[in-house]
Amino acid sequence: MAQKFDIYILGCGSALPTRKHLPSCQVVDLRDKLLLLDCGEGAQLAWRFTGLNWQRITHIFLTHAHGDHVFGLPGFLSTMGLLGRTAPLYIHGPSSLQTYVEFMKAHFFPDLSYDVRYEAVDTTVHALVFEDRSMEVWSLPLQHRLPCCGYLIKEKPGLAHIRREMIDFYEIPVWAINNIKAGQDWTTATGEVIPNSRLTTPPDPVRSYAYCSDTMPVPGVADWCRGVDLMYHEATYAESELDHALRYGHSTARQAAEVAKAAEVGKLMIGHFSSRYEDENELLEEARKVFENTILANEQLKITL
Amino acid sequence: MAQKFDIYILGCGSALPTRKHLPSCQVVDLRDKLLLLDCGEGAQLAWRFTGLNWQRITHIFLTHAHGDHVFGLPGFLSTMGLLGRTAPLYIHGPSSLQTYVEFMKAHFFPDLSYDVRYEAVDTTVHALVFEDRSMEVWSLPLQHRLPCCGYLIKEKPGLAHIRREMIDFYEIPVWAINNIKAGQDWTTATGEVIPNSRLTTPPDPVRSYAYCSDTMPVPGVADWCRGVDLMYHEATYAESELDHALRYGHSTARQAAEVAKAAEVGKLMIGHFSSRYEDENELLEEARKVFENTILANEQLKITL
Repeated sequence: MAQKFDIYILGCGSALPTRKHLPSCQVVDLRDKLLLLDCGEGAQLAWRFTGLNWQRITHIFLTHAHGDHVFGLPGFLSTMGLLGRTAPLYIHGPSSLQTYVEFMKAHFFPDLSYDVRYEAVDTTVHALVFEDRSMEVWSLPLQHRLPCCGYLIKEKPGLAHIRREMIDFYEIPVWAINNIKAGQDWTTATGEVIPNSRLTTPPDPVRSYAYCSDTMPVPGVADWCRGVDLMYHEATYAESELDHALRYGHSTARQAAEVAKAAEVGKLMIGHFSSRYEDENELLEEARKVFENTILANEQLKITL
Repeated sequence: MAQKFDIYILGCGSALPTRKHLPSCQVVDLRDKLLLLDCGEGAQLAWRFTGLNWQRITHIFLTHAHGDHVFGLPGFLSTMGLLGRTAPLYIHGPSSLQTYVEFMKAHFFPDLSYDVRYEAVDTTVHALVFEDRSMEVWSLPLQHRLPCCGYLIKEKPGLAHIRREMIDFYEIPVWAINNIKAGQDWTTATGEVIPNSRLTTPPDPVRSYAYCSDTMPVPGVADWCRGVDLMYHEATYAESELDHALRYGHSTARQAAEVAKAAEVGKLMIGHFSSRYEDENELLEEARKVFENTILANEQLKITL
């Protein structure tokens, strides 16, 4: 069974609050490590409904310095402290948000029980922002009214799968299994070399998720995100409000679908809906005309890759 | 009919978020002027469910610089700007929160469409903080882990009520009515003086609301709030957690009820519940043993005085 790679939508509205949506926040659960993507107001309240464990959050990735993406951060940080967190927390985002995080910490919780380590991201380049044994996170330069970048989260290739029947057949001992998973051949007691390919099946295909918000359509995104399993792309407006999209640095549903199509993604999820849409199916239908495999983001939605 | 004096509870939990409660925020609607009492995270989201008009908010009163009372403020201010507010907004609270408001404004919405005017409150004295034609707002010095004050909101006496049948009997013209409401006698064409008391019935009794959060029990509150129609008093803990209450500067349900009893209030509403209470009836029962007319605060509760 593939290891966990889940995305939870905690909020997918835009700046004006509605009765339906919270502002932007998502959680990525990759092999039990939790990443937060943006942290709009109410994120810690929505978190309570996921059942996820606060202590497993290791990194927060912020896209840009607009309130609807970051006003939930102080409450989130403070609550993790009240719950006794001790592990350091890494926040990645534009440098302008470092001042904000430091001000809030100094003003409201100077005695926080854990370290908050801010790592400024250059929003103008596509670069590796973070990696560990199981994943890479890359920045995606976006185009909005102020410095902004999305994030591409890619798992690293896992180990090969053992072919149980071959292990039994050659009576390979347990201590050798990890080496074989990692690619080694096996030499029997009689000196016969069994090639690794007979002992294993290939690792699971590598999965990836792209988070693109807030932005006008950016041509580079299609190259950086080619073939991702799932792309979240903001679609604040319908094409009939293209002038608004241009003016405020957002995308229409059609434009989001064009990006997904060019990137040949597996699935597109649109979100960051303007409060003007009572029925977001208008946006969904518009996107599906260009890219069929599109879904609407929604609070309490959980997607398993 | 008495003029409007309504209280809406937008949030009545304490610092740790739960599935049941939002952090502290209340709205007072006094004759169509809206006052906000504290502004915890999610306040602007809860606001959407009241159906109230953002533009009618004239003043915000903040009690103290803990996140669960003020982290909803930036989103609230920003949203009123997005909605095109132009009237100045007055914020009253401890001086330490002025820095916060000014930082957030400069950092996130330097081009706000309206003025935010911060008026620092001396949390150590019981004094008039604000008044207009229809109300007075007084500070209530409280005792918490940092400077903190509650607020007492009192309507001013209205005009006397006209006795319709007497007006008709003496054939008093319309132009004289306002003077009579304000207390003047009436002199008939024949020179007879009709005393005001024959022409009017007394104005409605003056109503008042006291908001006391967060605090340990403070003896002065009973004097300052004597006979208020409704008192909100925090009751973070049950008496069995008195040590926690003492340690963190909070009250138990019994203590809240003792304050209400000493103040001879009409009704007590308790709130700011610790997340540890699955069933807050434990707190309610404890309070009712001391002061029978007690209710639990709850989101979406609206109380008409």
